[in-house]
Amino acid sequence: MERQSLQSLISPRSVAVIGASDDVKRIGGRPLRYMREAGFAGKIYPVNPKRETVQGLKAYASVLDLPEVPDTAILAVPAAVTLAAVTECVEKGIPSAIVFSAGFSEAGAEGEALQAEIAAVARAGGMRLLGPNCLGVMNPALGYYGTFSVVLDGEFLAPGPVGIVSQSGAYGSHIAHLVRARGLGISQWITTGNEMDISLAEALDHVVAQPETRVVMAYAEGIGNGDRFRAALERARAANKAVVFMKTGRTEVGARAAASHTASLAGSDDVFDAVLRQYGAYRAMTTAEQIDIAYAAAGGVFPVGNKAGIFTMSGGFGIQLADDFTAAGLDVAPMPDAAQAELKALLPYASPVNPVDATAQAVSDMSILTAFVQSMMDKGGYDMFSAILGTGPASESFSKPLREALMAGFAGHDRSIRGLTMSAPRTVVADYEADGFLVYEDGGALAKSFGALAAFADAFARNDPQPTPGTPMDLPQGRMSEATAKTVLRTAGVRFADEALVRTGSEAAQEATRIGFPVVLKICSPDIAHKTEIGGVVLNLTDAAAVRQATDEMLDRVRKAAPDAEIEGVLVSAMLSGGVETIVGVHDDPSFGPVVMFGLGGVFVEVLKDVTFRVAPFGISEAHRMIREIKGHALLEGVRGAPPADVDALAQLLSQVSMFAAANRSRIAGIDLNPVRVMPRGQGVIALDALIELKEGEPS
Amino acid sequence: MERQSLQSLISPRSVAVIGASDDVKRIGGRPLRYMREAGFAGKIYPVNPKRETVQGLKAYASVLDLPEVPDTAILAVPAAVTLAAVTECVEKGIPSAIVFSAGFSEAGAEGEALQAEIAAVARAGGMRLLGPNCLGVMNPALGYYGTFSVVLDGEFLAPGPVGIVSQSGAYGSHIAHLVRARGLGISQWITTGNEMDISLAEALDHVVAQPETRVVMAYAEGIGNGDRFRAALERARAANKAVVFMKTGRTEVGARAAASHTASLAGSDDVFDAVLRQYGAYRAMTTAEQIDIAYAAAGGVFPVGNKAGIFTMSGGFGIQLADDFTAAGLDVAPMPDAAQAELKALLPYASPVNPVDATAQAVSDMSILTAFVQSMMDKGGYDMFSAILGTGPASESFSKPLREALMAGFAGHDRSIRGLTMSAPRTVVADYEADGFLVYEDGGALAKSFGALAAFADAFARNDPQPTPGTPMDLPQGRMSEATAKTVLRTAGVRFADEALVRTGSEAAQEATRIGFPVVLKICSPDIAHKTEIGGVVLNLTDAAAVRQATDEMLDRVRKAAPDAEIEGVLVSAMLSGGVETIVGVHDDPSFGPVVMFGLGGVFVEVLKDVTFRVAPFGISEAHRMIREIKGHALLEGVRGAPPADVDALAQLLSQVSMFAAANRSRIAGIDLNPVRVMPRGQGVIALDALIELKEGEPS
Repeated sequence: MERQSLQSLISPRSVAVIGASDDVKRIGGRPLRYMREAGFAGKIYPVNPKRETVQGLKAYASVLDLPEVPDTAILAVPAAVTLAAVTECVEKGIPSAIVFSAGFSEAGAEGEALQAEIAAVARAGGMRLLGPNCLGVMNPALGYYGTFSVVLDGEFLAPGPVGIVSQSGAYGSHIAHLVRARGLGISQWITTGNEMDISLAEALDHVVAQPETRVVMAYAEGIGNGDRFRAALERARAANKAVVFMKTGRTEVGARAAASHTASLAGSDDVFDAVLRQYGAYRAMTTAEQIDIAYAAAGGVFPVGNKAGIFTMSGGFGIQLADDFTAAGLDVAPMPDAAQAELKALLPYASPVNPVDATAQAVSDMSILTAFVQSMMDKGGYDMFSAILGTGPASESFSKPLREALMAGFAGHDRSIRGLTMSAPRTVVADYEADGFLVYEDGGALAKSFGALAAFADAFARNDPQPTPGTPMDLPQGRMSEATAKTVLRTAGVRFADEALVRTGSEAAQEATRIGFPVVLKICSPDIAHKTEIGGVVLNLTDAAAVRQATDEMLDRVRKAAPDAEIEGVLVSAMLSGGVETIVGVHDDPSFGPVVMFGLGGVFVEVLKDVTFRVAPFGISEAHRMIREIKGHALLEGVRGAPPADVDALAQLLSQVSMFAAANRSRIAGIDLNPVRVMPRGQGVIALDALIELKEGEPS
Repeated sequence: MERQSLQSLISPRSVAVIGASDDVKRIGGRPLRYMREAGFAGKIYPVNPKRETVQGLKAYASVLDLPEVPDTAILAVPAAVTLAAVTECVEKGIPSAIVFSAGFSEAGAEGEALQAEIAAVARAGGMRLLGPNCLGVMNPALGYYGTFSVVLDGEFLAPGPVGIVSQSGAYGSHIAHLVRARGLGISQWITTGNEMDISLAEALDHVVAQPETRVVMAYAEGIGNGDRFRAALERARAANKAVVFMKTGRTEVGARAAASHTASLAGSDDVFDAVLRQYGAYRAMTTAEQIDIAYAAAGGVFPVGNKAGIFTMSGGFGIQLADDFTAAGLDVAPMPDAAQAELKALLPYASPVNPVDATAQAVSDMSILTAFVQSMMDKGGYDMFSAILGTGPASESFSKPLREALMAGFAGHDRSIRGLTMSAPRTVVADYEADGFLVYEDGGALAKSFGALAAFADAFARNDPQPTPGTPMDLPQGRMSEATAKTVLRTAGVRFADEALVRTGSEAAQEATRIGFPVVLKICSPDIAHKTEIGGVVLNLTDAAAVRQATDEMLDRVRKAAPDAEIEGVLVSAMLSGGVETIVGVHDDPSFGPVVMFGLGGVFVEVLKDVTFRVAPFGISEAHRMIREIKGHALLEGVRGAPPADVDALAQLLSQVSMFAAANRSRIAGIDLNPVRVMPRGQGVIALDALIELKEGEPS
């Protein structure tokens, strides 16, 4: 059955508050008070069997007594009576409800069982549930505050472009406060708590879909519904809406705390990180970074390229911002020579390269400032502009002329991305913001934000064809030998070294002669995972006689060492060298399903853990981005005189493996291709070993 | 001649202001106005030939007319008349002066010549000069403001523990503003500009030496006087004073701008970075980070260890801070089991591990909060404590009880390091600070600051014996062959493979037999740098006959290919394998002299640039720290079943090379030991090749 959307929950026309209280400081009193003070235009039905009225509104003994079926219900009652309240809501036919109370799955087995029972009742009755253990929702444009968050104690939130979704109510409240303090408004605010029904993924999807949302700030400890989550991220990307994520549990200690705090299953943090990259979302490392970047993206304007111009009146600050921009991946490109000459003519002491330093002279004579800025805008070809103003705008007499002189330089560049670093009171900052400036105290924060804007623009511009995983293969039951795994993967497009499965020494000698020497022998059995340990591998055999003898001896040796193993025979393979050694793997992530890993072999994997991930399936372009992410990437471009490796073939292999894994996700537990040799450009990639692990149990 | 200290410049009892102006907004008017308003108790002599009085004070036509010799002079005159003014100051016998004016070395060759002339006049007259192109000095405790910085327009700076030294006046002003906004005071403030005499190093040394200074914020674009700089950093380290540095020009673009902006010679940024690590100073990447860390260190209290406890009333925030602490290198250690059980008994829903989460219950019942904090302080064994308060303290009714409940938990732990994250007005923050809390808006900033405190404590606790470089060796003239370089370095303690220099094939065969097979042959000549290219290397010779023949052929081949090269003979060396391949090098840094480089060989150097640096000389402990810094460090601990490498012998080699390089710094331009094989533990390190480059010209 198709679940109903979250419309009734977040944009209701009528609401029942179950457990409504006269005390405006209590959980059951706050939502009522907030909605009334904020002027919620819908109908509010307090439910409280002990009162005639609550906060001046007629109260009802039960939702069953309400004169109409409200769009939604807010349950401000203790855990113990929540099941009864939900049951009544279902009986009344209310399509959605919020459960505030804690004391469920986060509090132990008993709470978990109760939570499951409530969820089952709601599901059977077709009612959507938010929570439990959450702070509810806010919809400032409607004045709808289905929450008891104290962030509203001082003032309400303004409607605006920032959507907020958070598993933690406290964190969601905190960033709402930061958004407000930054002079921004909020489209919708949803906290999901224990997620017995509505997940962060679904909340994200809903908030992204609202036309007024231009940027989303999200907080999660773990993602339960990986496919839905990816779909929401892709929807945001396709709609040019920036998602700025805070995901905790990135270290082992954090993950330990996350597991003990909520019922969410924390997926591997590396995989989560890769998912955000894959869909163009930004992962903030601190809350300060999260709000800084959301602030920059809230205008919905993104740069076309990554060239950043810096205007300064002090050399030192200019250098520092140039460092920061470069560290953020932006190009601090010099001004064209002719434009530099013009600025030099105007002011001989100026440094006109980039940073463009007009010296303190631009303060005494602001026409110089305007001329410099205008030259940068007209001739510099910058995608982003930034000026360093220090404490200048804090001076009352200086602030307005400075702003006007700057604005004069932007004539004809209305939609430009222009940032300022300055220290001034909030009212002064607001004046500059009204003129289209993004204002930061700290240059490092500005640079990181501009870098994020460029990264968003890059992700939004991607137009990769959607990969289609194809139909599942008819995979065998039980364990798979290397030969079987290779047969399966060959069908999926993977290329292996020339080889043959043989049963006798003379057969081996014959195949080796056909393949060409030297060859490698490997015992082939679904029951033997560690071949070397029982003498099941012999390398570098250079003639037929040696192959014959080694094969017979190996079969003998292994049969003795592993008498119960089913022996399919011996694999005779061409012994290849050359190329760059890499590894390709697939594992089944609990949140995101099949995930492809790629890394360089040897010390890169074993010492540096230099690997990266992508959720399957993905196309060739995404595979190229994946390859470029590893630290040792330069090795594939050719170092020490080696030729560049066939990265195109590698990208194709990664994409093909991802398609295969996605198509067979119900069966595949893991794949190892190790090593994979990436040969010089034009010569492809060759996998030398293969392992497929299947999931236990029958295919679904 | 011993230069005078900076005492007269920064703490004068009397000052002449040359170019004094009635206009309090002008460069010549501001210092006068600031000193008078701030109540500077010393004598002020305005010098202005056109006026009887300036700002109400009697004016003099020339410094020569002054009734006494003032301690210092402030030159607020244009570049063109600066030479004349300095000459008069020298004639009067004034011991120090500040030159504000720009238009010197930063403005081209003419300005550079003028600057050099002025510096020469002052030097000859024994007068110390600050600037030119600087904003001067401030000494808030004396009300002495030898500056025209507009940062003083609103209010003066309070005296306090923060010393500031900056090459950029604008940057120095900006951080003074940030220090003031953070509620802190300043001990001394010195901006050095073009540094024609007084360098940032000397300014740093002076500020560190002041008893009231507890932390220094520094800004540099490049360091001219490396030895003085290192001495100042070491003085700070030994006195437990934290130095928090902003160094720009860390990227290529930044370095380009730095070179065009000032006359300072930017040393290699990697070397600068290593120098800060070597002396325990902290390099901030953003200004926000710099002020955050200086704020934490201003109390002068540093942790004994790196265990960090987190108290929270919201799980999500706790997890996030745990991530941040871990990323900052701190240990989020769990509470002892018994203490956990006690907290669970007190509050069954609590999460008592660490983060210790008392849930929202601690808000309703603050005795729980106190009990939890007290348990963490008494039983947790934490070196640093942090609590997450969110917007709670912003509530007027809530702020004071919350603070008192917290403080009750700290009974008996007065000197503890305790941080808070919270969002509240400045006055509320000040109340918490008065109770000894370090208050941050952002958890990421708090964690980074606490991590820095732990790193400072670690550096302050070092007690390495001072390395003594020993006496210079009598190095040969001209270019050195491999054999000569090895002879020299053997004396310095470096171990090489067993080898012999021979002149004939039969001699080679004899030596090879003594050494043992296999051997390597290498042509030995001071004139041949690239041996392989002219057939001057033969590997893996396994018997005497082969050695004889290969030697004769090599000598023949090389004499034909390089007829003008002086051939010393052929080096016959044991061909070694095993161990971990590393490289050790020395280069002569323009700021810091001989600098030792260390890295792993192969892809680590060539693809990952995984190398690190230390200024010579240094001891064994420092060498160990150096080794632990490289990314591939795990390779030395043994991976893939390899035995751990002899890291002790490697550290000894690095220290010995540093001693040799330091003792011979006047002669050595560079050293390469590549490769150096680090054998399994107990078997030492063996260098396989050596190159010494000498400086051009005669030994000094």
